[in-house]
Amino acid sequence: MAKVLGVLGGMGPAATVAFLARVQALTPAKGDADHIRIIADINPKVPDRNRQPDAAESVLGQMAMRLRDAGAQVLAMPCNTAHAQAAGISKVGLPFIDMIAETTEAALGNGAKKVGVLATPGGEALYTRTLQAKGSKIVRLTGPDRETFMACVYAVKRGDTGEAPRAEMRRLAAALVGAGAEVVIAGCTEVPLLLGTEDVSVPLVDSAEVLAQTCVRVCG
Amino acid sequence: MAKVLGVLGGMGPAATVAFLARVQALTPAKGDADHIRIIADINPKVPDRNRQPDAAESVLGQMAMRLRDAGAQVLAMPCNTAHAQAAGISKVGLPFIDMIAETTEAALGNGAKKVGVLATPGGEALYTRTLQAKGSKIVRLTGPDRETFMACVYAVKRGDTGEAPRAEMRRLAAALVGAGAEVVIAGCTEVPLLLGTEDVSVPLVDSAEVLAQTCVRVCG
Repeated sequence: MAKVLGVLGGMGPAATVAFLARVQALTPAKGDADHIRIIADINPKVPDRNRQPDAAESVLGQMAMRLRDAGAQVLAMPCNTAHAQAAGISKVGLPFIDMIAETTEAALGNGAKKVGVLATPGGEALYTRTLQAKGSKIVRLTGPDRETFMACVYAVKRGDTGEAPRAEMRRLAAALVGAGAEVVIAGCTEVPLLLGTEDVSVPLVDSAEVLAQTCVRVCG
Repeated sequence: MAKVLGVLGGMGPAATVAFLARVQALTPAKGDADHIRIIADINPKVPDRNRQPDAAESVLGQMAMRLRDAGAQVLAMPCNTAHAQAAGISKVGLPFIDMIAETTEAALGNGAKKVGVLATPGGEALYTRTLQAKGSKIVRLTGPDRETFMACVYAVKRGDTGEAPRAEMRRLAAALVGAGAEVVIAGCTEVPLLLGTEDVSVPLVDSAEVLAQTCVRVCG
């Protein structure tokens, strides 16, 4: 039975639109009516998840409530970092698809013990917890590479998906592989706007793709 | 003062996502927070606008009401044909940006007297009215070209934006120019997924682009 998907978006806006396009691309459809109905709140003004976590949680809770009242039956949020505030969303009583849990499961599918993660500090903390719970180890960016990663994310957020941030993101993924990662998680929804599976020498598990697949399975 | 934009979408789904991407591309932004907040109801199950106009109007009215209650302050609908049901939307009391009126104005900016329109039969009827009211004449597809046009639209709706429908759409645009059109309106939001300004020998006025520009101006 088809379900209406509510999307808490805008973190960032380009990543959300790419996610919506991906859900459509993954939906087997011969015409409009075969697609999932999606109500998306693309809110680029959610308070900073790192600096104002409580304010962010409260705004995300309000967004979830409004999506529910507008008819959403299942919720998803194409932003890894904001999953630290998932409690505010779950409170509204709808099933919430957990991007971190789904992506972790997909990354460990082939029995990887060392998993590279391209994520913000907040996203890294979430993946550290889920990977450890499954007996695997996170391989993370270190030293100046962490700042370079954030600079790439902010490049996407100001509309720059050109060759310079792409080259940096490829280098960061290679650094994780060099440090022993058997698989790399694109654990920030801006990453796939710069990096594809063809750019990494080990399997790349894209959190946005995993979330889109799960949404199609649950709501289709 | 920034306003929350409510989007009545899903007619079709790919056209709506392309429209959302276009609004973002047209927004001068250095980071997430510079973007417009958009609440989009991407509903691919709106009853057929040609065959069940009353049912469609009722559903569009409900969507508009829910978008309003979810926080939208201005409404827009990236589907030309469905503007025949605009009365159901306007009833909810929010400003509704009229895509047909805005596109007509943009197309007549350079004083064109004969305006080609690539649209569904319903969309053509709307443009005929607005163009005539301004003293200009519509140039429309005739004979089997009308069916070819609809076949191209349905190709997009089933995910085919390949060279075959693109070539057909270029040919249809050329047919309008051959019949005297001084400017061509892409009057169906599926058209720009197949046809660009570089494909037409006279100015191409894309209704989705015009609507996106107006949304940025009104809500930014």
